[in-house]
Amino acid sequence: MIQLQPIGLCHTSVPNKEVPAQRKTMLSTLEIFNQFKAGLPGIDQYSHLIVLFWMHEVTLPTQLSSYPRGDNSLPLTGALASRGRNHPNPIGLAVVELIELSNAGLVVRKLDAYDKSPILDIKPYDDYDVVSVPKVPDWFAKRARKAVP
Amino acid sequence: MIQLQPIGLCHTSVPNKEVPAQRKTMLSTLEIFNQFKAGLPGIDQYSHLIVLFWMHEVTLPTQLSSYPRGDNSLPLTGALASRGRNHPNPIGLAVVELIELSNAGLVVRKLDAYDKSPILDIKPYDDYDVVSVPKVPDWFAKRARKAVP
Repeated sequence: MIQLQPIGLCHTSVPNKEVPAQRKTMLSTLEIFNQFKAGLPGIDQYSHLIVLFWMHEVTLPTQLSSYPRGDNSLPLTGALASRGRNHPNPIGLAVVELIELSNAGLVVRKLDAYDKSPILDIKPYDDYDVVSVPKVPDWFAKRARKAVP
Repeated sequence: MIQLQPIGLCHTSVPNKEVPAQRKTMLSTLEIFNQFKAGLPGIDQYSHLIVLFWMHEVTLPTQLSSYPRGDNSLPLTGALASRGRNHPNPIGLAVVELIELSNAGLVVRKLDAYDKSPILDIKPYDDYDVVSVPKVPDWFAKRARKAVP
């Protein structure tokens, strides 16, 4: 087994069940615990971050396959082939916009973490993370391509 | 503390110290342990994946600031503002190309994990992970923008 320690905590006023619908616009504040603040200098040079958080509300073990977004008209899909919450290690991953580094922490947009989720890691998003036109399943392309800003 | 279980193991024939230089072309095979193979169906519908792995060679606790790439002409930078190996929770994250799903596992390109690194999670890369032109520090833009394929 591998052990991790939370480096901070996500704070948002959006209720859990409204997070998916409000994700594009909602703000979250990532409180970084004092002992890890020395890891922050330079982070405000980036426009975007990758946030890893612990999906603390997930009950383990998870189901290893499911219908994407709970829609059974879509193909039954393995957890590792989906961005759902049922991963064997429930680590959430989101590409977010960095709005500001304030005294309270990092204020970000587009994070789908629930309030009080432990933060595991933060990485700056850079050119190596860009794939111009990734290949995705037909069902994803049909439903999401119009929605992505 | 949060506990994780490895879901697989990274295999590559590239020696650790040659990984940074060979990253763009080297292949790695991600062996997925039997009990997690049910999580794979549908993954071959994607061209790119995000791989989370455990940097098992890192000694904890890490230094929370360092010079990017060991170059002391660059600004001293916090671990959370860098993609180095000194993160408080040493979770490696790489955007990789999926080459094939074989009996041995997922064959991928551009993964910078060392041989025998435990795999923690795999997520399909989709449109929400694309930031067309991320803002990065001047030093990164000067050195890396020419290098990114």
